[in-house]
Amino acid sequence: MTNDNCILVIFGASGDLTKRKLIPAMYDLKKNGQLPEKYIIVGVGRSSYDDDTFRERLNEGKEKNDDYRDFLNNIYYQSVNTSSVDDYKKIDDKLTMLNKEHSIGGNYIFYLATPPKLYSIIPEYLSHYGLNKEDEGWRRLIVEKPFGVNLETAKDLNRDILKYFKENQLYRIDHYLGKETVQNILVTRFGNGIFEPLWNRNFVDHVEITAAENIGVEQRGGYYDNSGALRDMVQNHLLQLTGLVAMEPPASLDSDAIRNETLKVFQSLKPFDTENLDKQYIKGQYISSKVKGQDVKGYREEEGVDPQSRTETYAAIKFYIDNWRWGGVPFYIRSGKCLPTRVSEIVIHFKPTPHRLFKKAFGTSDNFNKLVIRIQPDEGVLLKFGMKMPGAGFEVKEANMSFRYSDLSSVQLASAYERLLLDCINGDSTLYARGDAVEACWEFIQPLIDYDNSDNPPKVFGYPAGSWGPEHADDFIEGDQCSWRYPCKNLTNDGSFCEL
Amino acid sequence: MTNDNCILVIFGASGDLTKRKLIPAMYDLKKNGQLPEKYIIVGVGRSSYDDDTFRERLNEGKEKNDDYRDFLNNIYYQSVNTSSVDDYKKIDDKLTMLNKEHSIGGNYIFYLATPPKLYSIIPEYLSHYGLNKEDEGWRRLIVEKPFGVNLETAKDLNRDILKYFKENQLYRIDHYLGKETVQNILVTRFGNGIFEPLWNRNFVDHVEITAAENIGVEQRGGYYDNSGALRDMVQNHLLQLTGLVAMEPPASLDSDAIRNETLKVFQSLKPFDTENLDKQYIKGQYISSKVKGQDVKGYREEEGVDPQSRTETYAAIKFYIDNWRWGGVPFYIRSGKCLPTRVSEIVIHFKPTPHRLFKKAFGTSDNFNKLVIRIQPDEGVLLKFGMKMPGAGFEVKEANMSFRYSDLSSVQLASAYERLLLDCINGDSTLYARGDAVEACWEFIQPLIDYDNSDNPPKVFGYPAGSWGPEHADDFIEGDQCSWRYPCKNLTNDGSFCEL
Repeated sequence: MTNDNCILVIFGASGDLTKRKLIPAMYDLKKNGQLPEKYIIVGVGRSSYDDDTFRERLNEGKEKNDDYRDFLNNIYYQSVNTSSVDDYKKIDDKLTMLNKEHSIGGNYIFYLATPPKLYSIIPEYLSHYGLNKEDEGWRRLIVEKPFGVNLETAKDLNRDILKYFKENQLYRIDHYLGKETVQNILVTRFGNGIFEPLWNRNFVDHVEITAAENIGVEQRGGYYDNSGALRDMVQNHLLQLTGLVAMEPPASLDSDAIRNETLKVFQSLKPFDTENLDKQYIKGQYISSKVKGQDVKGYREEEGVDPQSRTETYAAIKFYIDNWRWGGVPFYIRSGKCLPTRVSEIVIHFKPTPHRLFKKAFGTSDNFNKLVIRIQPDEGVLLKFGMKMPGAGFEVKEANMSFRYSDLSSVQLASAYERLLLDCINGDSTLYARGDAVEACWEFIQPLIDYDNSDNPPKVFGYPAGSWGPEHADDFIEGDQCSWRYPCKNLTNDGSFCEL
Repeated sequence: MTNDNCILVIFGASGDLTKRKLIPAMYDLKKNGQLPEKYIIVGVGRSSYDDDTFRERLNEGKEKNDDYRDFLNNIYYQSVNTSSVDDYKKIDDKLTMLNKEHSIGGNYIFYLATPPKLYSIIPEYLSHYGLNKEDEGWRRLIVEKPFGVNLETAKDLNRDILKYFKENQLYRIDHYLGKETVQNILVTRFGNGIFEPLWNRNFVDHVEITAAENIGVEQRGGYYDNSGALRDMVQNHLLQLTGLVAMEPPASLDSDAIRNETLKVFQSLKPFDTENLDKQYIKGQYISSKVKGQDVKGYREEEGVDPQSRTETYAAIKFYIDNWRWGGVPFYIRSGKCLPTRVSEIVIHFKPTPHRLFKKAFGTSDNFNKLVIRIQPDEGVLLKFGMKMPGAGFEVKEANMSFRYSDLSSVQLASAYERLLLDCINGDSTLYARGDAVEACWEFIQPLIDYDNSDNPPKVFGYPAGSWGPEHADDFIEGDQCSWRYPCKNLTNDGSFCEL
């Protein structure tokens, strides 16, 4: 951990992410005493603020204390046309001045919170002024998602950026990896002796990963309509989760040791059978419905969305991992908008007992041994197992053992951006996506994108907003257990809430 | 399940057990509709009650409803000198009369709740009148504990009773086996796919079984001083628990299938090394102390106890099971009176991870993977495992997942006697101890009894009432983890309560 003094330069500083996530994350780090002794934040954007108007903008509508106003005094702004190489002189000058004035030691982080089309340009233009060179302090580049929109563009982007920044200077954001409970997957698996012996094809029946949102596209219709659930959630966040769930034990906690293992998982993903894509990939789109008596718009009626749009707001895929640990175990991943609840979770479905000794109680499924790792909300772990029903005989009923992450510590869980910014300051890239992994994930997903773009594309199933997506998705699930786990019922039916 | 009409004949009916346990258990069974259509209870004892005075005695001090008074009307009494064979004519006559009057079908259960010296006599005298013969209905004999006081007397008792009643007519009470959570050990192990793969020498470091009482001998000093913790708890209840924890999966839930498997465990108990008994057996005796400001008497000051008594109120043993599943895994069993709390639990201590990737948080032990099966109170299951401490880096802290049996069902858990009486009525002997098992357990314990009776007997360690027994007992525990699990602290120190 270096904890060197540094300057954080945020490109796209007038945007929403800066105000809503990055500045609050930095402030929380400061409050917790986790920032280096000297830190400066420089906002860079097209808007013509000066330092004070930018600070005011960040403070807007907030009644912050003295401490926050002190914090704001460490924030500066530089108005720049980011598409003009000449303008980068202003950045260089400002950084040189601040670096000297505050004795920062030349350590800069460049955070690209801009539209993706600038991800290639900014590194190049920074290099014109030597801002990529680590002659004095270190230089790091954080790139927001999306990292490419398909395999080709991701490769291009890697190639473009890596001309100016080395892989170890490059931090590709996957904010899912910044979540405590995501990191806790590693501890659950490798900090305990009791799970790992079960964590393989001998004992696991299938694995399910869900990221559900209960809101629609809201103001992001224009952006979303060019992206969709597959690109927006599955290719990055959910495959990264898969990597952590499926990886072999790393040799150490070194950033590359962990990322080498997740890469092996991505490289072992069994390619989709292009003759049978409909059995491995389902697209859905939410349609108008009533949720708790309120009318909810369908996706095609949302602002900024093409009324003929075929963009999926729900995607489910089924796949296998071709290695010794997981051969033959189906993995099911789904993500959607306007589902009944906001929940992200991983469910390890264990195989039933080899010999059924006991009678099942009414309503108990065949296969009740499940480990649920809840990423959000109600972060925690839930183990479902069979217990004896009280009374004569031996009747088995499903019971829950649960642990809530919030019980572990009174400390507020750090936000993903807090953790990721701190890690970057400390030079720890473990929780950032590496270039080869990003490409491997795109390579895996590419056949589905090609299918979408083909002359005979997949159907897009409508599903009422507030339901668990197209019913058709249940056909995916192999074996006796014929549906996904539904953490709560359809809101369109009865509005019951999510259980942990 | 037969659920035949029957008569329950209780010998020792004027005693405490009848009034406190047996009659209430029968009444609860009746309320739950679990008794056969026709049932009669006949109390037999030396006291010269008639039916009505006996009923009054049972009703004493209770404000019971009409339903209870109806129930009492099914209860009769026969005054008998149980040591005189001629007097058994009266029992025969009364049963013949009641059997005819109520069309019972000749099904009788004889429950021996008498002093143990009568256990051999009553079956013999019953046989004089053919009351053991199953010509008309069935005849069953329930024998209370203790079943012998050492190997020889247990063998004698088996031999004596089996002259008149066959093994399948004989029900040896071990009321621990009647507890829901004890039966749940079977369901936990064999109704789930996830525990059994870990349930062996490869993954289990050691097993701990505790039965702690927080009271002293109270009014039972005279009885207890001739018995002690080893005979009173270890030889029967705790070894039976060991049988359920350590057994192989049974072929079926048939009573003999299960009891064959527990017998195999008892037969595999590695005999104590008679040269080193002090390293496998510890005796303790509570001494006077202050608990929560109150003076508590020492054992030797208790009424009915020899002031020079060497009877143990605390016993701990360490042993191994010589089979493929458990070879080399130490089992630790302890039981005591005047300990800080009332708790019975089994703790499976799993081995630590083969590779320590993560730093332990302060105060976290080496070996935090434990499965705690709580028999009483707060019946439930607790899994201790490591979770990531929130924040940068990967620091592991012990966390709990817990399940409370009371969450499973709103039904009041049946008392052990309820369950056992119902099973006997239904002819299910699964939860009763079989003769061969009882002898195998005595055979295992016998070297400790011989040691107690030798010229050079073991020390008896004093421990203050309200503490966790002799500190010396910690020396037993092998390896890095150098103490027993203490579900709560010593009351003599701070009086904190038991955690589940």
